[in-house]
Amino acid sequence: MHYTVHDFETAARAELDPVYADFIAGGAQDEITVRANQAAFRRLRLLPRVLRGSAERNLETRLFGGRADLPILLSPTAFHKLLNPEGELATARAAAAAGAVMIVSMASTVAVGEIADAARAATEGGQAPPLWFQLYIQPDPEITDALVRRATDAGCSALVVTVDSPVLGAGERNRRNGFHDLPPGLRCENLVDLRDGERGHVRQIAMSPELNWEHVDRLRRTTDLPILLKGVLHPEDARLAVRHGVDGLLLSNHGGRQLDTVPATVELLPEIVAAVDGRVPVVLDGGVRRGTDVVKALALGAVAVGIGRPVMWALAEGGEKGVRRLLELLRDELDDALALCGASGPADLTPDLVRPPAWGFGPGTDVVPGADHRFGGVAG
Amino acid sequence: MHYTVHDFETAARAELDPVYADFIAGGAQDEITVRANQAAFRRLRLLPRVLRGSAERNLETRLFGGRADLPILLSPTAFHKLLNPEGELATARAAAAAGAVMIVSMASTVAVGEIADAARAATEGGQAPPLWFQLYIQPDPEITDALVRRATDAGCSALVVTVDSPVLGAGERNRRNGFHDLPPGLRCENLVDLRDGERGHVRQIAMSPELNWEHVDRLRRTTDLPILLKGVLHPEDARLAVRHGVDGLLLSNHGGRQLDTVPATVELLPEIVAAVDGRVPVVLDGGVRRGTDVVKALALGAVAVGIGRPVMWALAEGGEKGVRRLLELLRDELDDALALCGASGPADLTPDLVRPPAWGFGPGTDVVPGADHRFGGVAG
Amino acid sequence: MHYTVHDFETAARAELDPVYADFIAGGAQDEITVRANQAAFRRLRLLPRVLRGSAERNLETRLFGGRADLPILLSPTAFHKLLNPEGELATARAAAAAGAVMIVSMASTVAVGEIADAARAATEGGQAPPLWFQLYIQPDPEITDALVRRATDAGCSALVVTVDSPVLGAGERNRRNGFHDLPPGLRCENLVDLRDGERGHVRQIAMSPELNWEHVDRLRRTTDLPILLKGVLHPEDARLAVRHGVDGLLLSNHGGRQLDTVPATVELLPEIVAAVDGRVPVVLDGGVRRGTDVVKALALGAVAVGIGRPVMWALAEGGEKGVRRLLELLRDELDDALALCGASGPADLTPDLVRPPAWGFGPGTDVVPGADHRFGGVAG
Amino acid sequence: MHYTVHDFETAARAELDPVYADFIAGGAQDEITVRANQAAFRRLRLLPRVLRGSAERNLETRLFGGRADLPILLSPTAFHKLLNPEGELATARAAAAAGAVMIVSMASTVAVGEIADAARAATEGGQAPPLWFQLYIQPDPEITDALVRRATDAGCSALVVTVDSPVLGAGERNRRNGFHDLPPGLRCENLVDLRDGERGHVRQIAMSPELNWEHVDRLRRTTDLPILLKGVLHPEDARLAVRHGVDGLLLSNHGGRQLDTVPATVELLPEIVAAVDGRVPVVLDGGVRRGTDVVKALALGAVAVGIGRPVMWALAEGGEKGVRRLLELLRDELDDALALCGASGPADLTPDLVRPPAWGFGPGTDVVPGADHRFGGVAG
Repeated sequence: MHYTVHDFETAARAELDPVYADFIAGGAQDEITVRANQAAFRRLRLLPRVLRGSAERNLETRLFGGRADLPILLSPTAFHKLLNPEGELATARAAAAAGAVMIVSMASTVAVGEIADAARAATEGGQAPPLWFQLYIQPDPEITDALVRRATDAGCSALVVTVDSPVLGAGERNRRNGFHDLPPGLRCENLVDLRDGERGHVRQIAMSPELNWEHVDRLRRTTDLPILLKGVLHPEDARLAVRHGVDGLLLSNHGGRQLDTVPATVELLPEIVAAVDGRVPVVLDGGVRRGTDVVKALALGAVAVGIGRPVMWALAEGGEKGVRRLLELLRDELDDALALCGASGPADLTPDLVRPPAWGFGPGTDVVPGADHRFGGVAG
Repeated sequence: MHYTVHDFETAARAELDPVYADFIAGGAQDEITVRANQAAFRRLRLLPRVLRGSAERNLETRLFGGRADLPILLSPTAFHKLLNPEGELATARAAAAAGAVMIVSMASTVAVGEIADAARAATEGGQAPPLWFQLYIQPDPEITDALVRRATDAGCSALVVTVDSPVLGAGERNRRNGFHDLPPGLRCENLVDLRDGERGHVRQIAMSPELNWEHVDRLRRTTDLPILLKGVLHPEDARLAVRHGVDGLLLSNHGGRQLDTVPATVELLPEIVAAVDGRVPVVLDGGVRRGTDVVKALALGAVAVGIGRPVMWALAEGGEKGVRRLLELLRDELDDALALCGASGPADLTPDLVRPPAWGFGPGTDVVPGADHRFGGVAG
Repeated sequence: MHYTVHDFETAARAELDPVYADFIAGGAQDEITVRANQAAFRRLRLLPRVLRGSAERNLETRLFGGRADLPILLSPTAFHKLLNPEGELATARAAAAAGAVMIVSMASTVAVGEIADAARAATEGGQAPPLWFQLYIQPDPEITDALVRRATDAGCSALVVTVDSPVLGAGERNRRNGFHDLPPGLRCENLVDLRDGERGHVRQIAMSPELNWEHVDRLRRTTDLPILLKGVLHPEDARLAVRHGVDGLLLSNHGGRQLDTVPATVELLPEIVAAVDGRVPVVLDGGVRRGTDVVKALALGAVAVGIGRPVMWALAEGGEKGVRRLLELLRDELDDALALCGASGPADLTPDLVRPPAWGFGPGTDVVPGADHRFGGVAG
Repeated sequence: MHYTVHDFETAARAELDPVYADFIAGGAQDEITVRANQAAFRRLRLLPRVLRGSAERNLETRLFGGRADLPILLSPTAFHKLLNPEGELATARAAAAAGAVMIVSMASTVAVGEIADAARAATEGGQAPPLWFQLYIQPDPEITDALVRRATDAGCSALVVTVDSPVLGAGERNRRNGFHDLPPGLRCENLVDLRDGERGHVRQIAMSPELNWEHVDRLRRTTDLPILLKGVLHPEDARLAVRHGVDGLLLSNHGGRQLDTVPATVELLPEIVAAVDGRVPVVLDGGVRRGTDVVKALALGAVAVGIGRPVMWALAEGGEKGVRRLLELLRDELDDALALCGASGPADLTPDLVRPPAWGFGPGTDVVPGADHRFGGVAG
């Protein structure tokens, strides 16, 4: 049985090739940021209100004109077919069933169009929750254009542009394990047939240090889709992003997989929220494992949170059904946490409900008993 | 031999069904607040006075017109018959013998009237210390009224209304252990025969997210007993409570069993004391394990402290005699701690005797050697 | 070989009855203050000066008209015959040879007069460093007077009055070990024959909560010896002490053996130094294990430091020779630490050389590798 | 394979005489500063910029008129022939090949002239990066003069004068291991034949507490080489150094080998940079193990960083080739870290990219999993 998000990891590890488990759990270098993301949530304190008569909780969330049944998104993660033969199709069906926004990774092992079809089919006549598409802007603008076209054609309703990856982060677990390429039969399907006249050619995703704000401006001109930047951590860049007309920020440190020792995202949240000053919504990912974590992020000003590794563990262990159960679990935990804070929904969550840790809290008390730090049991 | 409160836990664990031991020790989710309650007391520093000629210590405590022999209450805990065949009768006799206030749990496995009889019988002609009654306000006002009537008829002298439980906290140990119901033969006796015409029917305790301040106002109108609210953590709610005419606060985070990651109660104490500004007394529970903990809470403005899990461990291990010894031990430790602080009694304890931890103290120095963090050895 | 003060403990533990080892190492209750004393020194940072031409170091220390060869005192510790058949005679000879002040415990197992004779004999014609005498003021003033007379007659040059012991601290190791009394043949020799007409009667040392400042005033009137108070921790009491005419303070938390969770002494030192404002000298004990610890205390305003447990370990392991080597080791460490700070002696040590820990320091970095926290390996 | 700087240590330990491994890894006394140096870097947080179009990174560094290919120096370390038969010749060739400045230790086991020849030969017609020479000023000025002459004749372009060693730090591992002297056949070659008329005589390096600023002034008058002081930690001494006309500071705590409990160097960096106020460049060593560490030091105002122990581990394990690979690894990590910070080179690194740790970070999250604290696995 799975009582907590961590149980999905434990169960998946029992079955999964350790190389792939490391691929999921690992991060850049010493994985200090990987651990900090979760530790920061554990150390934040909640100060609930009582007797507010919050009989029914409403988790509905509206973002960029679309709606979702809960303020929890599936952050973009790559290579789902590594973990389950149905790959992103399974993930998308589970997300659709839960009414959750899925951000399709540019590095998905199923083409975004097929993912969108699966999501629609899973909602049985109803309206599927939106799919968003994660994009690395490519140095060759025509490739970028083609990718945006594919996402648009698939019905994606927003673009999430990753800007923290001028180079690939040092995933030392992958290096030690010799895990560099997808196994035979798997490929980044969104990158197929992007070159003229050569059927079946799969382009490499370019991570380019040349990217600058003009690339964002160009993208802005070529699409009407809302654009979120993913990976802005410096408040000055948050202000620049607003000035360049982006529609939102996904405050993310790439799950600690790019630059090690960057702060936990929730630690930066108040400052980033202040920097954008209400002009665009801020979504956060990094370390969300509990309903209380969601409450904390929303109380500090995020409009929604994303989850990454938990989806991969659930997919690896239980396929579509696993991801469904994960999302149900998180929805239940969020519902309970809202009730226990005297809140009927996200709108009732105010910053005074959250406090930084003081002397009675923090290092030493926030260690989760039984969690295996050495092998990434609390990584995420 | 039992030299410390922790020894009662160690001894009880050696005999107790692990499922019940987990029921006692466990808390919500990652049990961060469970650990924080005790850690906060350990990290607070005491700055004793000397040469104050405090030859005799007087621990007598007056509260709401009643008196107790010491400023240590038995906080409400459920299901004592799980731990000892005499259940709450044993607890009540031990409390009466020690002259300590017992707060009878609404979820007691002996009816409050019988508990009161046992307490009176245990005081051999003298005056029994007061019993208080813990109440979850029920959505059906008639049920609430009936419960208050039962408590009043039994002679309880105060009502402790728990307000932190709009839903039941996630006791993951209980879920993992499949511990959901009382075993055959045990029931919440205060909930029996509350429905007309159906003998022997046991009502479920409703934890309702619908409760609001009007429910408190209504209770206020229907009883003359002093009302304490248990579970107020936000200073704004403390101010509201005073405005709604309650007579006291029991500052409690439910032993970390409701919402995880709420602060240690003693960490919040100065702020709550400031919020009520002397208009009502504040009792505190959560993590009290040492006479020095009592001194710290009293110095910071509490009029008394409650203990929860220690009573259950003592009851499980030694029945009435166990609880007696526990209370003697705590009384002795408190007496010594007062003497070592140069105090003749609670009134001599001032806030300048307590300091938050500084660099030479806190994480790393406050770990109790030999305590088993993994299995809850320091939980409580 | 003994390279560090800790080595004396390791060596002594290999030979010593564990009950006596616990007697030395243990402290009150959870021994939080025991650990804090050392941790505080480890976490303080030193900021050395360079190129100061400090070719020769002069460690000579003058206190109350007497002189010592180094600013390290032997704090009063009880029952030396438990650890070595020569008991305090061995300790005193080693102290005399090192030119260190020894504070004879009122609870010594050799009478203070004999100790003084041994100290004088050990200095081979030279002038013995002063002996001081530690005193618990007794409720019966005649007994106190008799004790002062014995100390004075022995040639002690100062009285160190312990004021932190209105009751005996809870040494839970001793309780668990059943260690309550001296074994047959050993007794507190200073307490012998204090009652008229009954030869060989040994009085119990009374620890009285009745003591107040008038007892100090009375002592002040009955002796011309300098009086230091040992155990004042609250700055208000430090000011009171000055007002009552004491000649100095021994800032001590009784090695963490009286009230648990009081601050590390070095953490309080700046505040106590500020409170007495230069009117009387402040000596500090608690946690001193390294030459750098001595430098830190002196830089923060102490005129000397005391060591307690290390003397007992050294005595247990090597008798007089052990204590000699301990004092030589500490002298060498202090000499090196002074040189490395660019100081020629205590007078060159200024508060700007010491800093509280910041983010790069403290918990986690100050754990001494290999030290056994569980069994008191770093306690002291 | 070596994926991280730590891997060189692990590999070297598998082959090296433990006495020599301890010589490398060890530090003064409890090695608190040894651990703090690395911990401080791990706890500092990076706040990267994005979309800065930093396509090419330029690591070229100019210092005192010379140039290096990267801002990473080889800090002076002694006795390379202990670790590899070619000793400093291997180190120098690797440094030359990488275009890195090597600071030749006065205690090298190859004479500085031969080291310089090897460095030149390794650069295949190109221009070798500068060699600097580390100097302990000797009490006998003629000896100092002779050493400076040897360094100058060898073509060294700067003198690094160590000022933190009035006495030798307490390397307790070496004492326990009985490691006091070089084995037969090895000697400090720069100290040979410094006395008239006695061929083959090897002088002892004198560490003298007599040194003062006049010795620096004298050196200043006798050489035109730039002079850096190594070991200044107090900001007042940094100001004095500027006033005495030195050309730069190497902010170093001697790898934690001299005075224990001095702060981590990177913790002091902002203050030292402020103290010299741009008048002389500041180089930093101590704890640098990652490209992100280099970025942090440069962002806080250092012009370059030095590495010590890693060079010794690499030399011990792989000789010249090992050191080459180490420098390549660090260059690659630095290049990646710059790219991930949106920087094209050191000049783009500003203090706002670095933050002290806050609540979500620091103790507990910065422990490197799998690192062996006990045996110095993370020391350095």
